[in-house]
This record gives sequence, C-alpha cells and structure tokens, in this order.
Amino acid sequence: MQGFGSAPALKASQSLVRPLVRELHAYVPGEQPKIKGLIKLNTNENPYPPSSRVLKAVKAAVDGRLRLYPNPTAQLLREKLAKLHRCKPDNIIVGNGSDELLAMAVRAFVEPKSGARGARDSEIVQYFHPSYSLYPVLADIHGAAKNAVSLDANFGLPNLKRGGRWNFHAALSFVTTPNAPSGHGYSLKELDRLCRATKGVVMLDEAYVDFAAENALQLALKHSHVLVARTFSKAYSLCFQRVGYFVGHPELIAALDKIRDSYNVNGLGQVAALATLEDLAYYRANFRKVISTREGLSRELTKLGFRVLPSQTNFILAKPPGNVLPASRRQKLQKQNRRQDGGGTLTAPAWLQRLREKKILVRWFNQPEVKDYLRITIGTSAEAQALVRAVKNILQ
Amino acid sequence: MQGFGSAPALKASQSLVRPLVRELHAYVPGEQPKIKGLIKLNTNENPYPPSSRVLKAVKAAVDGRLRLYPNPTAQLLREKLAKLHRCKPDNIIVGNGSDELLAMAVRAFVEPKSGARGARDSEIVQYFHPSYSLYPVLADIHGAAKNAVSLDANFGLPNLKRGGRWNFHAALSFVTTPNAPSGHGYSLKELDRLCRATKGVVMLDEAYVDFAAENALQLALKHSHVLVARTFSKAYSLCFQRVGYFVGHPELIAALDKIRDSYNVNGLGQVAALATLEDLAYYRANFRKVISTREGLSRELTKLGFRVLPSQTNFILAKPPGNVLPASRRQKLQKQNRRQDGGGTLTAPAWLQRLREKKILVRWFNQPEVKDYLRITIGTSAEAQALVRAVKNILQ
Repeated sequence: MQGFGSAPALKASQSLVRPLVRELHAYVPGEQPKIKGLIKLNTNENPYPPSSRVLKAVKAAVDGRLRLYPNPTAQLLREKLAKLHRCKPDNIIVGNGSDELLAMAVRAFVEPKSGARGARDSEIVQYFHPSYSLYPVLADIHGAAKNAVSLDANFGLPNLKRGGRWNFHAALSFVTTPNAPSGHGYSLKELDRLCRATKGVVMLDEAYVDFAAENALQLALKHSHVLVARTFSKAYSLCFQRVGYFVGHPELIAALDKIRDSYNVNGLGQVAALATLEDLAYYRANFRKVISTREGLSRELTKLGFRVLPSQTNFILAKPPGNVLPASRRQKLQKQNRRQDGGGTLTAPAWLQRLREKKILVRWFNQPEVKDYLRITIGTSAEAQALVRAVKNILQ
Repeated sequence: MQGFGSAPALKASQSLVRPLVRELHAYVPGEQPKIKGLIKLNTNENPYPPSSRVLKAVKAAVDGRLRLYPNPTAQLLREKLAKLHRCKPDNIIVGNGSDELLAMAVRAFVEPKSGARGARDSEIVQYFHPSYSLYPVLADIHGAAKNAVSLDANFGLPNLKRGGRWNFHAALSFVTTPNAPSGHGYSLKELDRLCRATKGVVMLDEAYVDFAAENALQLALKHSHVLVARTFSKAYSLCFQRVGYFVGHPELIAALDKIRDSYNVNGLGQVAALATLEDLAYYRANFRKVISTREGLSRELTKLGFRVLPSQTNFILAKPPGNVLPASRRQKLQKQNRRQDGGGTLTAPAWLQRLREKKILVRWFNQPEVKDYLRITIGTSAEAQALVRAVKNILQ
C-alpha cells in the first residue's frame, strides 16, 4: 500500500468501498492443511471417491470443447434431476455449489435494511442457532437484519407456539436439516408443520440429507413458499466441482434465475453431476458404509466416555470425557492451546490439539452451545479405527 | 403452478420475491444451437483448443481428489498470476469467470438506490454505450442507478471535457477495453487520462486484450482506484471452466474477498488455469493466428463491400453491403426475418439469416448504434474462408 499520505482517517482506496462491506469481517477459510498422512475429519468431505463411471465421464469430456461455453442453464442436468425428483426442470436451478444459491436467495427474497429503526419482516434473514454459520454472513453481506432462534437443548426444533422468538413473517428462513453441527435429524412431519406456520420463504438446506432417515423434498413441491437445497459436494463426493441445486416453485426458481450469473455452473461440473445420477447405486452403497461407520464409531466413543449425539449426517458431535475443569482454568488452557492439568483432564480444544498431534484433524467451534464438543467427520472404517486408537492412547 | 385462487393480483409465490427482482427481465442466454456442421462465429470463443499440456494436467487431476474442497482462495493460481503481472497475490482475486467478479464489484462498491429522487454518486454504475451488455443488468439486479455514456461515432472514448455526461464521481465505472461489440482498442495513454480524471472505482474490463496492441494492466498497480478484469475464457480457450480474475489495490481486492463465496472457483478450473500459465507460448502463437485471420478476413470482406471496423479483439464488427432500404421497408423485412426485396438488398439481420441458412452463425445486436452491423467472431482460417465463400454466394 504505497504512500497515500501519513495516517489518513480513511485510506483513499478504503473510502471507495461501501461502509457495509468495510464493516464485514474478512472470511477465514476452513483449514486445509497439507500434512502428509493426516487423517482429515474436519470438513465433512466424503471419504469415498466419485464412482469410476463419473471419473471416466469427466476425463472423456476433457478435450477441445473446454474452449466453448458450458450450457448456461445446466439444461440436461436439470432435466435429469427433475426426473429423479418427479418434478419439472422449471422447479430446479443449479448453482456453483449450493453456497452460491443460498447467497442468491438472500438477494432475491430479502430487502436490505432501510434504516436504523427496527427491521421490517421483509428485511429479515432467520435461522436456527446453532446451524450453518454461513447464514448470518450472507445476511451481513446483503445488509439484511438477522433473527437467530435457539434450538432446544438437544438441537431439536424449539416449541414455536410457546412465545419463542421465531418470526413467522420473516422474508427468508434457513433450516439446516439434518442440523449441522449437531447431526440432529428432523422429521418430515415437524418440518411440514414449521413450513405451514411460516409465511415467508422457507429454505430447507438438506446438504447432509442423504445420510438421514428421511428427507423433506416433497415440501418444496407442495408449498409454494418452500425451497429445498441439495448439493453434490458431500454425499456425491464432488466438492472439487462445485455443483448444488434448489428445488421449488417455478416462480421462486424464476426469480433466482433472473439474478444468476449467465454461466454459473462450470461444464465439467455439469458432466460430473450428470454421470453421478447415472450411477446412484454406487453412492447409495457409500451412504450405507458411512452410516455403518458412524454408528460403530459412536458406540466405540461412547464406551470410551464420550457423549455422542445421535447423528443423521456424515459427522458426529461428541463431547469428550474429562471436561470438568473450572471455567477460569479451562480458559487459561484454551489460551495456551495446551492440554492437561495435573489430573489429565482435557477441554474440547485440548482434545483437538492432542488428536492433531496424532495426525487426526477434527473440528471445534468456539460457540457457547457446542464449545464442549468436537465435530468429527465420518471417514472410512480404517480412519474410524485410527481415531479410536488415538483416543485410547490419549486416555491412557 | 397449482391453483392459488383465480386470477389473483399477485400470485402468492410472486409476492415473496423482492419487487426489485420481480421487475427484472428474465435473462435470455446466448444462442448455443446444436446444429451439425454449424460454423459458430457468434460468441467470441477461441477456435483453438486448450494446449495439450493443459488437457493432460486436467485429466491427471480427475481422480479421488474430486471429493475434496478446492483451495478456497485459488492460492497457487494467484501466486502464479502475481509473478506474471509482477505484483503480489494480495493484488489478485479469482472468480467463477470474470462475470462473477463484475457482479461482486457492483455489490462491493455501489450503494443500492435509496429513494425516488435523483441518484447520488455513490449509487451510480457507469459505463460506455455500446459496450458489454452485462453492466446495466448488474446495476438493475443490485438496484443501483445507471449512467450510460455514448462513445463517439467510431466507438472511441468521447471528449469528456466538452460537457459530456461522464460522471467523474460515479461509484463504479466499467470500461470494456478493447471495446465490445466494436473491437475498437484504446491506448494506455487515453485510459490513464480517463482513470486520473475519474474519482470512483474504474474497472478496465480487458476480456479481449490478448488480441490487442497494448494493455492497461499497469494502471491497476499504479492507481489505487483502478481494477483490471481478465479472463481465461476467450484468449485461453477455457470458457467451459469458468476462471477469471481482477488485479488491483489490496484494499479493493480485500473488499471483494469479503463478499466472495468461500469456494467460488472449481478445482479443475484452478488446475487448468495453472497449467495454462505454464504454456503461454502456445497461446501467444494462437493470438497471432487469430490476429492474422482477423486482418485477412477484414480485407476480404472490405473487398466485397463490407464496412469493417478496425478491431483489436477476436471479432470484427462489419456493416454488410446493400443496406439501402427505406426505414419502413427495412422494419417490415426485419419483422418477417426475410431477406430481400426486388433489388436483392439485405439488412444486417437478413444477412444473419442468409448466413445461418449456409450454416454460419454470426451475431446481430438490435441497438441503434450497431443495428446495421454484424459481429463476427474470428474462427480458424478455414472458417474465415467458408464465410467469404458464403458471402460471395449470397452476393451473386
């Protein structure tokens, strides 16, 4: 930054940025360390690769056609998804990952705050807490108001009738279902009740639903104000390729389509997603493997003293044992990022650190509701065994 | 759309959409017909494929790693681009095509209109007319004000001192350089003058600059309010992969980074772009071929009675001969999409139609300044010859 005068009130270049954007915190990307032999259980990626048919289809598409624009509306993919979900292509919009579409939903359905007084319903982005940490970020970027409503103590939906803080007229409500980071699943019935009671747009974010007992896709086809978000990233092993989609009423989809970048979905991503839909049996077998590993790991960790929450996803939220230090001492240890007192007692972040030393990376969230827990992505069976061994080793 | 009452003033689902978005026109994607043997000279794609090293690198990356998230900040690519442009990675942000970044620039630097009265400078998106038709669309999506300033009769920059309509304090000014759809190139000197005189953010959109005599990248490193947009789509034959980038002051780049989707650039796109930078000699040879074909085709068409504007891009804007009908008759013919009167005279859209019948697709814009012209993408030398043959055939 080359000499714009000494210590000005605001750098020339900064004054060109909208005050709203200036006040945003810089995004800190998730940890993607390149440590050899590291078992990476921190970002909910699928441990299994895409099917060989998918890899073959993508490789076969890598030729001179890369010079051409991809299909702007992901037409073939939308047609195939429509068949899968028994709806029409007009019910579907494809995005550069579902993250892009979540951001577009805020821009299409929510007004930026217009003044300093209390927010109007039309300006509110609503979501449960804790859930996907992107929602408040998207609201802030758009200049919308936020309404975070606490889940109950077990991460279930709160009883909204009992004077909760849920705003039934909020412009847009996000529901991560199953919930992240807890893994808690919601029944179709309770989601239907929530959708019926809520008058604004309801976004059911089903990023992890393939690992759950039931899904709520039919609600997006039944209610004109409900959208369901899906992604090829996690369940379909295509994080690298960035393909997600929404299902919903054609009028809502058309609104999103109007604000979409013309060529938002890269061509090889479209090819990969199409080939994925041709080989669903492979992926369903993977879901079963992940679920089986999840249940086995949950049992093992429970035996070792963890409190493992029931999960409907490809991760578990687990409270490690021995978390009994007084708050002051815990804080001090957290600060030092160190692990033990005289009695061998460990906080959750200290567990994270100990596991990391053993080349296993899990995730810890510094939020009141979950700060005593670790979020552990379900890897392969071998990775789960390595984790159990490491835990045993730490406990000894 | 399942029975929301008979003829309501506004459908239930529509009322959930922001009025701003409701009023937007649906985007009509460019024509991508699948006609066998069609010579496609309508969307400025490069006629030459990516280099064999690029194809090899992308193929080699198609394996189990597709299950993992790509690097969130395109770190390696930004480092390599920084070396190429002799700046730092902090001077660069990579996008899902440059279109994504152009949209982000509007959101980062321009306030939405706050009232019905005249727009404030902070609410204005400014651009020359004609130029890239996306700019007004982006302004409308954001709810910003627009200031379109006419280029001079030859598509050169107007004399801004002589009381033109250029707003020197507009929040964001887009300059397509070289210009599309005319192909007109601007000198570094005149762009520098424009940048110095303008106080808001200036975006020099150099999508076609690799086919030009000079570029203005240094202005983004010299002035703290200037950004340069580049893309791998056209010159580097990677439309399918969606990779574009901005170069500019770290403060402006940081502002854009704050509102960026976490994983906005797909992994194989990053791989392809990196490999491209390893093989620039191949691409530079292609630029020379395209330029040579452009000059040859321009001469041939001029001989055949076209008025071909000098081009610094991979397309030419050319006024076909015989365009001498009275306006009323021309309009009627355009409506019919038909081609000739008794004297064999053709309007530009009639030329488009005749060429299409001969399996050559070019582009026509229905705008006053260019409606007598065809925009013709420069293809291979063989494609140029086929076009010349078709033109001769039509003229006979």
